[in-house]
Amino acid sequence: MRRWQRVIIGIDPGTNVMGYGVLGISGKRPEVVDLGAVKFRASESHYLRLHRIHQSVLALVERFLPDEMAIEAPFFGKNVQSMLKLGRAQGVAMVAAISRDIPITEYEPRKIKMAITGNGAASKEQVQEMLRRILAMDRAALPPELDATDALAAALCHYYESSRPQRSAGPRSWKDFVARNPDKLL
Amino acid sequence: MRRWQRVIIGIDPGTNVMGYGVLGISGKRPEVVDLGAVKFRASESHYLRLHRIHQSVLALVERFLPDEMAIEAPFFGKNVQSMLKLGRAQGVAMVAAISRDIPITEYEPRKIKMAITGNGAASKEQVQEMLRRILAMDRAALPPELDATDALAAALCHYYESSRPQRSAGPRSWKDFVARNPDKLL
Repeated sequence: MRRWQRVIIGIDPGTNVMGYGVLGISGKRPEVVDLGAVKFRASESHYLRLHRIHQSVLALVERFLPDEMAIEAPFFGKNVQSMLKLGRAQGVAMVAAISRDIPITEYEPRKIKMAITGNGAASKEQVQEMLRRILAMDRAALPPELDATDALAAALCHYYESSRPQRSAGPRSWKDFVARNPDKLL
Repeated sequence: MRRWQRVIIGIDPGTNVMGYGVLGISGKRPEVVDLGAVKFRASESHYLRLHRIHQSVLALVERFLPDEMAIEAPFFGKNVQSMLKLGRAQGVAMVAAISRDIPITEYEPRKIKMAITGNGAASKEQVQEMLRRILAMDRAALPPELDATDALAAALCHYYESSRPQRSAGPRSWKDFVARNPDKLL
């Protein structure tokens, strides 16, 4: 039987390193289940890297049986070339989750940084340090790759986003506005 | 037993339609084995489309057991957004082939058009018409989607590229040049 009520996997896919972080939630307390990074050697071809990303995400999904996936997905990049390659890495990570019916939510790096540190322009080191405190991790337990904590940050950001009360949808009509705001009528 | 000595699958992945074409080669004669397109409905989410591209390529690979895959891969696009989405579609198509150890070769649209029609700026209709003649296809057998013939064109382009004699490597040194060109010595 699984120890957690809910498991969220965070993925930070890239063509040089893929970071991952798994968050387990029992009650209202998120805990780190696993985090790490898959690093690619310079000798590994682009295609081999795509294959390893796909296989790694499949293996993580089968091991931790996550309920949801959060993925760090920049919407803008240096150039179309780098975005094409990043898109390929994202696609193969995503399809591994989709094939196991795991819903995916994408978060921009800025949004993740904001959710964790309160500053959308925070450095990766600041994100790591804040995560370490929130999740009570030993400094010694942190992997050297900041991509791992970036991925964990995506998972925690998703937990926060999905746990907070829904924003009230604005008034749908004048009648609706009146019904909601009787005190604003003159 | 397989009827062909060599089978090449061509794929034209996109986020609205995925075209595919399968070429069988016996001796020096390429023949059309299959071609078609997977069209996505407007109601299908981006993730579902990625899943369907992946599943479709896996199914084609298992059905036709291709030796190689040729993929139409534009290197430039309208903007980073469209390239990111195209990259995702390409990635999931590629990883389906890689997982079955099928080598992939990417061709720019311009290169494919040049190989088939002799004109790198040919229209999709011109590519289709030229393919129809080269491969002796009935007009009635052509699928309505031009993405299907685009994919078949990628496969035929790969056949041409892989069949032509290797370009001689230029002289590697002065000694080598002298040895190759005794008549050019004064």
